[in-house]
Amino acid sequence: MPTSLELLFHDGLRDIYFAERKILTALPKMIEAAQSDELREAFEKHRGETETQVTRLQEAFELLGKRSQAKTCVAIEGILAEGDEVMQVYKGTPALDAALIASAQSVEHYEMARYGTLAQLAATLGLPDVAELLEATLAEEADTDEALNALAKASANENG
Amino acid sequence: MPTSLELLFHDGLRDIYFAERKILTALPKMIEAAQSDELREAFEKHRGETETQVTRLQEAFELLGKRSQAKTCVAIEGILAEGDEVMQVYKGTPALDAALIASAQSVEHYEMARYGTLAQLAATLGLPDVAELLEATLAEEADTDEALNALAKASANENG
Repeated sequence: MPTSLELLFHDGLRDIYFAERKILTALPKMIEAAQSDELREAFEKHRGETETQVTRLQEAFELLGKRSQAKTCVAIEGILAEGDEVMQVYKGTPALDAALIASAQSVEHYEMARYGTLAQLAATLGLPDVAELLEATLAEEADTDEALNALAKASANENG
Repeated sequence: MPTSLELLFHDGLRDIYFAERKILTALPKMIEAAQSDELREAFEKHRGETETQVTRLQEAFELLGKRSQAKTCVAIEGILAEGDEVMQVYKGTPALDAALIASAQSVEHYEMARYGTLAQLAATLGLPDVAELLEATLAEEADTDEALNALAKASANENG
């Protein structure tokens, strides 16, 4: 019988697994919309990382002896829906890249919150191998957010 | 005629104004649900801060000569809906506080992403007074997230 903390951990894994795969379907639209080469390249790089992150989650499920299973994550659906809306509104304007970066940073921050919680729960539950996988992704998400910060400054200053 | 970057900034302000007021309506439920005194006190403290943050946004609108106006933020609606669901699922279990903290950290991270973007846009648009208000809130949200991290560790270890 799993403890409630184990259930919370598994639910969280399934939630972020859904989120990562949803983000993978959103990235091509963002890559296509990006106006500067730098932003397009950053999104392309992040698409590759996101694929790796999905694989890491599958490894985590495997280490737990569980099937990789996604659970609808309404939070990421809301965040991505807002990103879609903003992309439509600022299409063809000089603020489009700044809008895309802002949306991407909301996504990154959601992921950082989730991976931070999950890595810590894994450690508490005595699952150091799983914690290590989650921490590797957490570090990547934080790096992506930093890179987007730098692009946001450059992009806003060009159009400000 | 405002530039597209100014429009993006105003849209973002209206979005986070909606989000902050929605968070204010969610916090009493979280305060009531919290099991440990430390978590309840942290949420109570954050309710007070959130009220101040709403006031700061009203000051920002005033500095811009705009009416304080909210714009539906589907991202925060999704994040809070997920928090509500988790609160129901883990009600009466030892994992409830860990679940509440995880939800609150998703909210904090959304806000950090938004205030980070907005503070930077305000600076770019030559609005240092507005940027200062937004940065004050950004720093508070980061402190709240740190405090929740410490509580998450304590809470998970008690039940792990």
